[in-house]
Amino acid sequence: MHILIIGAAGMIGRKLVARLVRDSELAGQQVTELTLSDVVDSPLPEGFTGKTTNVVTDLSYPSNAQRLVSSRPDIIFHLAAVVSGEAESDFEKGYRINLGGSGALFEAIRTEGQQQPYRPRVVFCSSIAVFGPPFAEPIHDDFITAPQTSYGTQKAMSELMLADYSRRGFFDGIGIRLPTICVRPGKPNAAASGFFSNILREPLVGQEAVLPVDESVRHWFASPRAAIGFLLHGASIDLQQLGTRRTLNMPGLSATVADEIEALRQVAGEKAVRLIRREPDERIIKIVDGWPYDFAPERALALGFVAEKSFSEIIQAHIDDELEGRLP
Amino acid sequence: MHILIIGAAGMIGRKLVARLVRDSELAGQQVTELTLSDVVDSPLPEGFTGKTTNVVTDLSYPSNAQRLVSSRPDIIFHLAAVVSGEAESDFEKGYRINLGGSGALFEAIRTEGQQQPYRPRVVFCSSIAVFGPPFAEPIHDDFITAPQTSYGTQKAMSELMLADYSRRGFFDGIGIRLPTICVRPGKPNAAASGFFSNILREPLVGQEAVLPVDESVRHWFASPRAAIGFLLHGASIDLQQLGTRRTLNMPGLSATVADEIEALRQVAGEKAVRLIRREPDERIIKIVDGWPYDFAPERALALGFVAEKSFSEIIQAHIDDELEGRLP
Repeated sequence: MHILIIGAAGMIGRKLVARLVRDSELAGQQVTELTLSDVVDSPLPEGFTGKTTNVVTDLSYPSNAQRLVSSRPDIIFHLAAVVSGEAESDFEKGYRINLGGSGALFEAIRTEGQQQPYRPRVVFCSSIAVFGPPFAEPIHDDFITAPQTSYGTQKAMSELMLADYSRRGFFDGIGIRLPTICVRPGKPNAAASGFFSNILREPLVGQEAVLPVDESVRHWFASPRAAIGFLLHGASIDLQQLGTRRTLNMPGLSATVADEIEALRQVAGEKAVRLIRREPDERIIKIVDGWPYDFAPERALALGFVAEKSFSEIIQAHIDDELEGRLP
Repeated sequence: MHILIIGAAGMIGRKLVARLVRDSELAGQQVTELTLSDVVDSPLPEGFTGKTTNVVTDLSYPSNAQRLVSSRPDIIFHLAAVVSGEAESDFEKGYRINLGGSGALFEAIRTEGQQQPYRPRVVFCSSIAVFGPPFAEPIHDDFITAPQTSYGTQKAMSELMLADYSRRGFFDGIGIRLPTICVRPGKPNAAASGFFSNILREPLVGQEAVLPVDESVRHWFASPRAAIGFLLHGASIDLQQLGTRRTLNMPGLSATVADEIEALRQVAGEKAVRLIRREPDERIIKIVDGWPYDFAPERALALGFVAEKSFSEIIQAHIDDELEGRLP
């Protein structure tokens, strides 16, 4: 089985590649070839015995998309995107990459299939950013996509195209709307959502972190490990059962910042909790206020997608996967 | 006030132009200039004293869209589209015109505004084809857009872009999701929805018409007159009250074919009803089964959009507007 991962150098992409190398199979089939693509070099996995190809390319140019697809991978993970903040600050780039990139990929697959029958599976990484207030409580599977950002708009538009191309039989697509990923590994960053991870990740290793919102703020979470599980499960199940609604809200944990802090206390004690510094930030408070926080992802649950059920589990996944199983 | 109508040669476009010429004002302002654009010649209205320009152009080419917008119209009605059947049979053309056309127009407005401030109103004609089964009963304003056709997909994608460009302040946009227009004037055509109009329009003038579905079939209707009213009202009201959800389900009449026939009986007698010939058509039965049939368009009603409340009214509108007020 030949797997193409577009956006392989990002956080989710790297973890997905590592998992595929570790498992060396997907949906009961051996992974014999990995093509890793991104706008920068993708780390090439160690320990993989199959063929690997690293392609540095900008998907949004149709000829690049055609070249990627011409090797006819069996499964395509489409994770490539300009993040929310950049899509908001650079309007043209956001549309070019996040909408144009998806469009170029989908068209490349369709035209490749016109040469000779070809119908790969496409697993598209979408986001709960497709939703905007006022929200239903919880958000059901038939809730309107009304994004508040250009990023969410571009994801919602790509989802619609994914469904139509799948309905037409050009490929077999599934869209995965990821919850906010927590605990996000790496350094604190400027993303408005960064604090949800910062206030756990930093105190766990004895560092200070800033909390810019009230503890009552509620949000929708899943671990990086759960996110990789969603993508692999989406690559494995029979997609005919989705009908024409090809994008799913993923399961997750609806929890408050207070829930996060309480789980941190249980895992790492009061000492860790004291490393969280309250610094209310009106800009972030306002942004977060427009984010969805509770879902009833009935379709995904029925299809066997699984996420964490408590923040203790989310923290434990972080300790296992990023801290070699123990606190320093 | 300068008004640009894109798709001015179509059924809705011609009626809109006729109404603007008759009223000679919109939202309390005098209409001084009309630019009529379509891929074919648009009929130039008689009795209009302002400036009129007829532009035969294909909107989907960015340079054409730029040329149209460079005259900086105050209001742009975007009605141009390849119809549902053609978007389904010619995949590339559907995306090029229905998605690419909207995209080219919206981008032309944005880039025109970069030269010198420009923020026109854009009234975009969308469709209930953005919805697909299973339906809520009735369909509320926050119901998912899950189209079953490429046409519906292209309309839903354009709606998302319209909302994002409006949120960014590039123009002031509103999307109008028209119900099925009935009684559609003209000749019987091959559209799957044609029979809803045919079984009224033809018997009213003593002609036979074919009914391919059961009388229990329910659907969502408004007259051409109501549709023009929606577009003009959308061009007149304060759109700030829409927030970021810029497209509205329009009011309409949820009625069965039996309701249509009963109204025909009341208006034109049993003689007219006997001109309806039952010829079940499995293909049409199947298509119609995927169409939405009942809405609770609360937002549009609160904003003052108005449609007919009975099929007698719909038939009367047809007799008034197409048959000079009386049956032959």
